Amino acid sequence: MSDVLTSLQQVLEERKSASPDSSYVAKLHSKGLNKILEKIGEEATETILAAKDVEPGKDHSDLVYETADLWFHSMVMLSHLNIDVNEVLNELERRFGLSGLEEKANRNK
Amino acid sequence: MSDVLTSLQQVLEERKSASPDSSYVAKLHSKGLNKILEKIGEEATETILAAKDVEPGKDHSDLVYETADLWFHSMVMLSHLNIDVNEVLNELERRFGLSGLEEKANRNK
Amino acid sequence: MSDVLTSLQQVLEERKSASPDSSYVAKLHSKGLNKILEKIGEEATETILAAKDVEPGKDHSDLVYETADLWFHSMVMLSHLNIDVNEVLNELERRFGLSGLEEKANRNK
Amino acid sequence: MSDVLTSLQQVLEERKSASPDSSYVAKLHSKGLNKILEKIGEEATETILAAKDVEPGKDHSDLVYETADLWFHSMVMLSHLNIDVNEVLNELERRFGLSGLEEKANRNK
Repeated sequence: MSDVLTSLQQVLEERKSASPDSSYVAKLHSKGLNKILEKIGEEATETILAAKDVEPGKDHSDLVYETADLWFHSMVMLSHLNIDVNEVLNELERRFGLSGLEEKANRNK
Repeated sequence: MSDVLTSLQQVLEERKSASPDSSYVAKLHSKGLNKILEKIGEEATETILAAKDVEPGKDHSDLVYETADLWFHSMVMLSHLNIDVNEVLNELERRFGLSGLEEKANRNK
Repeated sequence: MSDVLTSLQQVLEERKSASPDSSYVAKLHSKGLNKILEKIGEEATETILAAKDVEPGKDHSDLVYETADLWFHSMVMLSHLNIDVNEVLNELERRFGLSGLEEKANRNK
Repeated sequence: MSDVLTSLQQVLEERKSASPDSSYVAKLHSKGLNKILEKIGEEATETILAAKDVEPGKDHSDLVYETADLWFHSMVMLSHLNIDVNEVLNELERRFGLSGLEEKANRNK
Protein backbone atom coordinates (compact mmCIF):
# COMPACT_ATOMS: atom_id res chain seq x y z
CA MET A 1 0.00 0.00 0.00
CA SER A 2 2.89 2.30 0.79
CA ASP A 3 6.26 0.75 0.11
CA VAL A 4 8.28 3.15 2.23
CA LEU A 5 5.95 3.32 5.22
CA THR A 6 5.31 -0.44 5.19
CA SER A 7 9.05 -1.13 5.05
CA LEU A 8 9.64 1.37 7.82
CA GLN A 9 6.98 -0.35 9.91
CA GLN A 10 8.83 -3.67 9.53
CA VAL A 11 12.08 -2.10 10.67
CA LEU A 12 10.32 -0.49 13.64
CA GLU A 13 8.81 -3.84 14.59
CA GLU A 14 12.26 -5.47 14.64
CA ARG A 15 13.73 -2.64 16.71
CA LYS A 16 11.01 -2.98 19.33
CA SER A 17 12.79 -6.02 20.76
CA ALA A 18 16.32 -4.61 20.41
CA SER A 19 18.43 -3.44 23.33
CA PRO A 20 17.63 0.12 24.48
CA ASP A 21 21.38 0.72 24.60
CA SER A 22 21.90 -0.01 20.92
CA SER A 23 18.68 1.30 19.37
CA TYR A 24 17.06 4.74 19.51
CA VAL A 25 13.67 3.16 18.79
CA ALA A 26 14.08 0.53 21.52
CA LYS A 27 15.10 3.29 23.93
CA LEU A 28 11.94 5.25 23.12
CA HIS A 29 9.79 2.16 23.77
CA SER A 30 11.57 1.50 27.05
CA LYS A 31 10.90 5.08 28.20
CA GLY A 32 7.21 4.60 27.49
CA LEU A 33 4.30 6.26 25.71
CA ASN A 34 4.70 9.74 27.27
CA LYS A 35 8.26 10.06 25.96
CA ILE A 36 7.11 9.07 22.44
CA LEU A 37 4.23 11.59 22.59
CA GLU A 38 6.60 14.31 23.82
CA LYS A 39 8.64 13.69 20.66
CA ILE A 40 5.51 14.12 18.51
CA GLY A 41 4.82 17.47 20.21
CA GLU A 42 8.44 18.53 19.70
CA GLU A 43 8.58 17.50 16.06
CA ALA A 44 5.23 19.15 15.30
CA THR A 45 6.62 22.41 16.72
CA GLU A 46 9.87 22.06 14.76
CA THR A 47 7.88 21.36 11.57
CA ILE A 48 5.81 24.52 12.14
CA LEU A 49 8.95 26.62 12.73
CA ALA A 50 10.73 25.16 9.68
CA ALA A 51 7.66 25.89 7.52
CA LYS A 52 7.63 29.52 8.72
CA ASP A 53 11.31 29.81 7.74
CA VAL A 54 10.90 28.48 4.18
CA GLU A 55 11.79 31.16 1.63
CA PRO A 56 10.72 30.92 -2.02
CA GLY A 57 13.51 29.59 -4.21
CA LYS A 58 15.67 28.71 -1.20
CA ASP A 59 16.59 25.28 0.14
CA HIS A 60 13.70 23.69 2.06
CA SER A 61 15.49 20.60 3.33
CA ASP A 62 14.96 21.53 7.01
CA LEU A 63 11.21 21.28 6.54
CA VAL A 64 11.54 17.93 4.71
CA TYR A 65 13.70 16.66 7.57
CA GLU A 66 11.32 17.84 10.32
CA THR A 67 8.26 16.44 8.54
CA ALA A 68 10.06 13.08 8.21
CA ASP A 69 10.81 13.24 11.96
CA LEU A 70 7.15 13.97 12.73
CA TRP A 71 5.91 11.06 10.63
CA PHE A 72 8.65 8.76 11.94
CA HIS A 73 7.72 9.39 15.57
CA SER A 74 4.01 9.01 14.68
CA MET A 75 4.91 5.55 13.40
CA VAL A 76 6.84 4.70 16.58
CA MET A 77 3.67 5.68 18.49
CA LEU A 78 1.53 3.39 16.31
CA SER A 79 4.06 0.58 16.79
CA HIS A 80 4.11 1.14 20.56
CA LEU A 81 0.32 0.74 20.64
CA ASN A 82 0.33 -2.19 18.17
CA ILE A 83 -1.59 -0.31 15.48
CA ASP A 84 -0.87 -1.09 11.83
CA VAL A 85 0.17 1.94 9.75
CA ASN A 86 -2.09 0.60 7.01
CA GLU A 87 -5.07 1.53 9.16
CA VAL A 88 -3.99 5.17 8.84
CA LEU A 89 -3.32 4.86 5.12
CA ASN A 90 -6.68 3.12 4.63
CA GLU A 91 -8.39 5.97 6.47
CA LEU A 92 -6.70 8.49 4.16
CA GLU A 93 -7.65 6.42 1.12
CA ARG A 94 -11.21 5.96 2.30
CA ARG A 95 -11.67 9.69 2.66
CA PHE A 96 -10.53 10.68 -0.79
CA GLY A 97 -11.25 7.40 -2.57
CA LEU A 98 -14.97 7.27 -2.01
CA SER A 99 -16.82 10.53 -1.82
CA GLY A 100 -13.62 12.48 -1.34
CA LEU A 101 -11.56 14.07 1.38
CA GLU A 102 -13.36 17.32 0.84
CA GLU A 103 -16.74 16.07 1.78
CA LYS A 104 -15.49 14.40 4.95
CA ALA A 105 -13.35 17.32 5.92
CA ASN A 106 -16.21 19.75 5.47
CA ARG A 107 -18.37 17.70 7.80
CA ASN A 108 -15.75 18.35 10.47
CA LYS A 109 -16.13 22.07 10.37
CA MET B 1 6.83 5.03 -3.85
CA SER B 2 3.74 5.27 -1.70
CA ASP B 3 0.56 4.63 -3.60
CA VAL B 4 -1.77 6.24 -1.09
CA LEU B 5 0.31 9.32 -0.31
CA THR B 6 1.20 9.90 -3.95
CA SER B 7 -2.47 9.61 -4.94
CA LEU B 8 -3.43 11.94 -2.12
CA GLN B 9 -0.85 14.43 -3.32
CA GLN B 10 -2.44 14.42 -6.77
CA VAL B 11 -5.86 15.09 -5.31
CA LEU B 12 -4.43 17.90 -3.15
CA GLU B 13 -2.79 19.45 -6.22
CA GLU B 14 -6.12 19.52 -8.06
CA ARG B 15 -7.93 21.03 -5.08
CA LYS B 16 -5.41 23.86 -4.83
CA SER B 17 -7.09 25.60 -7.74
CA ALA B 18 -10.66 24.81 -6.68
CA SER B 19 -13.05 27.38 -5.26
CA PRO B 20 -12.56 28.03 -1.53
CA ASP B 21 -16.34 27.81 -1.21
CA SER B 22 -16.54 24.27 -2.50
CA SER B 23 -13.29 22.74 -1.19
CA TYR B 24 -11.91 22.47 2.34
CA VAL B 25 -8.38 22.23 0.93
CA ALA B 26 -8.83 25.29 -1.28
CA LYS B 27 -10.21 27.18 1.71
CA LEU B 28 -7.12 26.28 3.76
CA HIS B 29 -4.85 27.54 0.97
CA SER B 30 -6.81 30.77 0.67
CA LYS B 31 -6.46 31.39 4.41
CA GLY B 32 -2.71 31.01 4.13
CA LEU B 33 0.21 29.18 5.72
CA ASN B 34 -0.53 30.18 9.35
CA LYS B 35 -3.99 28.60 9.22
CA ILE B 36 -2.52 25.36 7.79
CA LEU B 37 0.16 25.30 10.51
CA GLU B 38 -2.46 25.95 13.21
CA LYS B 39 -4.21 22.80 11.98
CA ILE B 40 -0.95 20.82 12.32
CA GLY B 41 -0.62 22.03 15.92
CA GLU B 42 -4.25 21.14 16.63
CA GLU B 43 -4.05 17.68 15.06
CA ALA B 44 -0.76 16.89 16.84
CA THR B 45 -2.47 17.72 20.16
CA GLU B 46 -5.53 15.63 19.27
CA THR B 47 -3.26 12.72 18.26
CA ILE B 48 -1.46 12.93 21.62
CA LEU B 49 -4.76 13.00 23.54
CA ALA B 50 -6.20 10.09 21.52
CA ALA B 51 -3.02 8.06 22.16
CA LYS B 52 -3.32 8.68 25.91
CA ASP B 53 -6.92 7.45 25.77
CA VAL B 54 -6.18 4.16 23.96
CA GLU B 55 -7.04 1.19 26.17
CA PRO B 56 -5.68 -2.31 25.47
CA GLY B 57 -8.20 -4.44 23.64
CA LYS B 58 -10.53 -1.49 23.05
CA ASP B 59 -11.33 0.29 19.80
CA HIS B 60 -8.50 2.60 18.73
CA SER B 61 -10.17 4.22 15.72
CA ASP B 62 -9.97 7.73 17.23
CA LEU B 63 -6.18 7.55 17.19
CA VAL B 64 -6.16 6.23 13.59
CA TYR B 65 -8.44 9.10 12.62
CA GLU B 66 -6.35 11.79 14.35
CA THR B 67 -3.08 10.46 12.93
CA ALA B 68 -4.63 10.52 9.45
CA ASP B 69 -5.67 14.14 10.10
CA LEU B 70 -2.13 15.03 11.20
CA TRP B 71 -0.55 13.48 8.11
CA PHE B 72 -3.22 14.95 5.84
CA HIS B 73 -2.61 18.49 7.06
CA SER B 74 1.17 17.92 6.83
CA MET B 75 0.59 17.11 3.17
CA VAL B 76 -1.51 20.25 2.66
CA MET B 77 1.42 22.20 4.13
CA LEU B 78 3.87 20.54 1.71
CA SER B 79 1.51 21.27 -1.17
CA HIS B 80 1.13 24.91 -0.07
CA LEU B 81 4.93 25.28 -0.18
CA ASN B 82 5.29 23.31 -3.42
CA ILE B 83 7.28 20.49 -1.82
CA ASP B 84 6.87 16.96 -3.18
CA VAL B 85 5.80 14.38 -0.57
CA ASN B 86 8.35 12.02 -2.14
CA GLU B 87 11.10 14.19 -0.67
CA VAL B 88 9.81 13.26 2.79
CA LEU B 89 9.44 9.59 1.88
CA ASN B 90 12.94 9.59 0.35
CA GLU B 91 14.33 11.06 3.57
CA LEU B 92 12.65 8.30 5.59
CA GLU B 93 13.97 5.68 3.16
CA ARG B 94 17.45 7.13 3.17
CA ARG B 95 17.65 6.96 6.94
CA PHE B 96 16.71 3.32 7.33
CA GLY B 97 17.77 2.09 3.89
CA LEU B 98 21.45 2.88 4.15
CA SER B 99 23.10 2.67 7.51
CA GLY B 100 19.77 2.57 9.24
CA LEU B 101 17.40 4.89 11.03
CA GLU B 102 18.98 4.02 14.33
CA GLU B 103 22.36 5.35 13.48
CA LYS B 104 21.01 8.64 12.20
CA ALA B 105 18.62 9.03 15.06
CA ASN B 106 21.38 8.41 17.57
CA ARG B 107 23.49 11.14 16.05
CA ASN B 108 20.67 13.53 16.86
CA LYS B 109 20.73 12.81 20.55
CA MET C 1 0.64 36.99 45.26
CA SER C 2 -0.49 37.95 41.80
CA ASP C 3 -3.43 40.31 41.82
CA VAL C 4 -4.51 39.67 38.25
CA LEU C 5 -4.10 35.90 38.23
CA THR C 6 -5.67 35.50 41.66
CA SER C 7 -8.64 37.64 40.62
CA LEU C 8 -8.93 35.67 37.39
CA GLN C 9 -8.94 32.46 39.41
CA GLN C 10 -11.87 33.74 41.47
CA VAL C 11 -13.83 34.58 38.33
CA LEU C 12 -13.04 31.14 36.87
CA GLU C 13 -14.23 29.47 40.06
CA GLU C 14 -17.58 31.27 39.85
CA ARG C 15 -18.01 30.39 36.19
CA LYS C 16 -17.46 26.69 36.89
CA SER C 17 -21.00 26.41 38.19
CA ALA C 18 -22.58 28.66 35.53
CA SER C 19 -24.76 27.38 32.72
CA PRO C 20 -22.76 26.03 29.74
CA ASP C 21 -25.14 27.97 27.51
CA SER C 22 -24.26 31.32 29.03
CA SER C 23 -20.57 30.89 29.85
CA TYR C 24 -17.62 29.94 27.65
CA VAL C 25 -15.75 28.68 30.73
CA ALA C 26 -18.69 26.58 31.89
CA LYS C 27 -18.99 25.14 28.37
CA LEU C 28 -15.30 24.16 28.41
CA HIS C 29 -15.77 22.40 31.76
CA SER C 30 -18.85 20.58 30.50
CA LYS C 31 -16.94 19.33 27.45
CA GLY C 32 -14.26 17.92 29.73
CA LEU C 33 -10.51 17.87 30.18
CA ASN C 34 -9.60 16.83 26.61
CA LYS C 35 -11.34 19.87 25.14
CA ILE C 36 -9.51 22.17 27.59
CA LEU C 37 -6.16 20.55 26.72
CA GLU C 38 -6.90 20.85 22.98
CA LYS C 39 -7.27 24.59 23.56
CA ILE C 40 -3.85 24.69 25.27
CA GLY C 41 -2.31 22.97 22.25
CA GLU C 42 -4.07 25.38 19.89
CA GLU C 43 -3.09 28.49 21.82
CA ALA C 44 0.54 27.33 22.17
CA THR C 45 0.68 26.95 18.37
CA GLU C 46 -0.95 30.36 17.82
CA THR C 47 1.52 31.93 20.28
CA ILE C 48 4.44 30.40 18.38
CA LEU C 49 3.10 31.64 15.02
CA ALA C 50 2.43 35.13 16.40
CA ALA C 51 5.97 35.29 17.82
CA LYS C 52 7.42 34.34 14.42
CA ASP C 53 5.41 37.16 12.83
CA VAL C 54 6.55 39.90 15.22
CA GLU C 55 8.53 42.57 13.36
CA PRO C 56 10.78 45.05 15.18
CA GLY C 57 9.07 48.36 15.71
CA LYS C 58 5.70 47.03 14.56
CA ASP C 59 2.59 46.33 16.61
CA HIS C 60 2.91 43.14 18.65
CA SER C 61 -0.61 42.98 20.04
CA ASP C 62 -1.35 39.63 18.37
CA LEU C 63 1.37 37.97 20.42
CA VAL C 64 0.13 39.62 23.63
CA TYR C 65 -3.36 38.38 22.84
CA GLU C 66 -2.27 34.79 22.08
CA THR C 67 -0.07 34.60 25.19
CA ALA C 68 -3.03 35.79 27.27
CA ASP C 69 -5.15 33.05 25.64
CA LEU C 70 -2.50 30.42 26.45
CA TRP C 71 -2.27 31.47 30.09
CA PHE C 72 -6.04 31.83 30.38
CA HIS C 73 -6.67 28.27 29.15
CA SER C 74 -3.85 27.00 31.42
CA MET C 75 -5.80 28.51 34.31
CA VAL C 76 -9.05 26.88 33.16
CA MET C 77 -7.14 23.56 33.19
CA LEU C 78 -5.89 24.19 36.74
CA SER C 79 -9.43 25.12 37.81
CA HIS C 80 -10.85 21.99 36.16
CA LEU C 81 -8.42 19.86 38.17
CA ASN C 82 -8.92 21.89 41.38
CA ILE C 83 -5.33 23.12 41.50
CA ASP C 84 -4.63 26.57 42.96
CA VAL C 85 -2.79 28.95 40.60
CA ASN C 86 -0.68 29.99 43.59
CA GLU C 87 0.98 26.59 43.48
CA VAL C 88 2.34 27.49 40.03
CA LEU C 89 3.35 30.98 41.16
CA ASN C 90 5.01 29.52 44.26
CA GLU C 91 6.95 27.10 42.08
CA LEU C 92 8.17 30.01 39.92
CA GLU C 93 9.07 32.00 43.02
CA ARG C 94 10.83 29.05 44.64
CA ARG C 95 13.04 28.57 41.62
CA PHE C 96 14.32 32.10 41.34
CA GLY C 97 13.85 33.17 44.94
CA LEU C 98 16.16 30.70 46.60
CA SER C 99 19.10 29.40 44.65
CA GLY C 100 17.79 30.95 41.45
CA LEU C 101 15.99 29.87 38.34
CA GLU C 102 19.26 29.40 36.54
CA GLU C 103 20.55 26.75 38.82
CA LYS C 104 17.35 24.76 38.73
CA ALA C 105 16.97 25.15 35.01
CA ASN C 106 20.52 24.02 34.41
CA ARG C 107 19.92 20.87 36.40
CA ASN C 108 17.22 20.02 33.87
CA LYS C 109 19.54 20.02 30.91
CA MET D 1 0.33 44.08 39.20
CA SER D 2 1.65 40.58 39.68
CA ASP D 3 4.41 40.41 42.25
CA VAL D 4 5.81 37.05 41.18
CA LEU D 5 5.64 37.58 37.42
CA THR D 6 6.97 41.12 37.66
CA SER D 7 9.86 39.97 39.85
CA LEU D 8 10.54 37.11 37.47
CA GLN D 9 10.61 39.58 34.60
CA GLN D 10 13.28 41.61 36.37
CA VAL D 11 15.43 38.53 36.89
CA LEU D 12 14.97 37.54 33.24
CA GLU D 13 16.01 41.03 32.14
CA GLU D 14 19.26 40.76 34.14
CA ARG D 15 20.02 37.32 32.78
CA LYS D 16 19.65 38.52 29.20
CA SER D 17 23.10 40.06 29.37
CA ALA D 18 24.73 37.21 31.32
CA SER D 19 27.18 34.77 29.80
CA PRO D 20 25.53 31.90 27.88
CA ASP D 21 27.94 29.56 29.65
CA SER D 22 26.73 30.49 33.12
CA SER D 23 23.03 31.14 32.54
CA TYR D 24 20.30 28.91 31.05
CA VAL D 25 18.30 32.03 30.12
CA ALA D 26 21.28 33.68 28.43
CA LYS D 27 21.93 30.45 26.54
CA LEU D 28 18.33 30.40 25.28
CA HIS D 29 18.65 34.01 24.07
CA SER D 30 21.94 33.23 22.33
CA LYS D 31 20.37 30.30 20.49
CA GLY D 32 17.61 32.58 19.23
CA LEU D 33 13.84 32.80 18.95
CA ASN D 34 13.28 29.39 17.35
CA LYS D 35 14.93 27.59 20.26
CA ILE D 36 12.76 29.52 22.75
CA LEU D 37 9.60 28.70 20.75
CA GLU D 38 10.61 25.02 20.56
CA LYS D 39 10.70 25.03 24.37
CA ILE D 40 7.15 26.49 24.46
CA GLY D 41 5.95 23.67 22.19
CA GLU D 42 7.73 21.09 24.36
CA GLU D 43 6.41 22.46 27.64
CA ALA D 44 2.86 22.74 26.27
CA THR D 45 3.02 19.04 25.33
CA GLU D 46 4.45 18.10 28.73
CA THR D 47 1.71 20.12 30.46
CA ILE D 48 -0.96 18.28 28.44
CA LEU D 49 0.55 14.88 29.27
CA ALA D 50 0.91 15.74 32.97
CA ALA D 51 -2.74 16.89 33.06
CA LYS D 52 -3.87 13.59 31.52
CA ASP D 53 -1.93 11.73 34.23
CA VAL D 54 -3.43 13.59 37.19
CA GLU D 55 -5.44 11.23 39.39
CA PRO D 56 -8.00 12.50 41.93
CA GLY D 57 -6.54 12.62 45.41
CA LYS D 58 -3.02 11.90 44.19
CA ASP D 59 -0.02 14.23 44.04
CA HIS D 60 -0.30 16.72 41.15
CA SER D 61 3.12 18.35 41.48
CA ASP D 62 4.21 17.25 37.98
CA LEU D 63 1.45 19.35 36.45
CA VAL D 64 2.32 22.35 38.64
CA TYR D 65 5.95 21.99 37.57
CA GLU D 66 5.15 21.71 33.83
CA THR D 67 2.74 24.65 33.93
CA ALA D 68 5.45 26.72 35.64
CA ASP D 69 7.85 25.68 32.86
CA LEU D 70 5.34 26.68 30.19
CA TRP D 71 4.76 30.11 31.73
CA PHE D 72 8.46 30.58 32.42
CA HIS D 73 9.42 29.96 28.78
CA SER D 74 6.52 32.20 27.64
CA MET D 75 8.14 34.94 29.70
CA VAL D 76 11.57 34.28 28.17
CA MET D 77 9.88 34.68 24.77
CA LEU D 78 8.33 38.02 25.81
CA SER D 79 11.70 39.15 27.15
CA HIS D 80 13.46 38.09 23.92
CA LEU D 81 11.01 40.24 21.94
CA ASN D 82 11.13 43.13 24.45
CA ILE D 83 7.47 42.81 25.40
CA ASP D 84 6.43 43.69 28.97
CA VAL D 85 4.62 40.87 30.82
CA ASN D 86 2.23 43.53 32.14
CA GLU D 87 0.82 43.83 28.62
CA VAL D 88 -0.34 40.21 28.92
CA LEU D 89 -1.67 40.72 32.45
CA ASN D 90 -3.45 43.88 31.34
CA GLU D 91 -5.06 41.97 28.48
CA LEU D 92 -6.29 39.30 30.93
CA GLU D 93 -7.57 42.00 33.27
CA ARG D 94 -9.25 43.92 30.48
CA ARG D 95 -11.17 40.87 29.39
CA PHE D 96 -12.64 39.97 32.74
CA GLY D 97 -12.56 43.38 34.34
CA LEU D 98 -14.89 45.12 31.94
CA SER D 99 -17.69 43.14 30.41
CA GLY D 100 -16.03 39.89 31.36
CA LEU D 101 -13.89 37.17 29.87
CA GLU D 102 -16.97 35.27 28.88
CA GLU D 103 -18.21 37.81 26.45
CA LYS D 104 -14.86 38.23 24.74
CA ALA D 105 -14.22 34.50 24.67
CA ASN D 106 -17.62 33.85 23.14
CA ARG D 107 -16.92 36.28 20.34
CA ASN D 108 -13.98 34.07 19.40
CA LYS D 109 -16.06 30.96 18.80
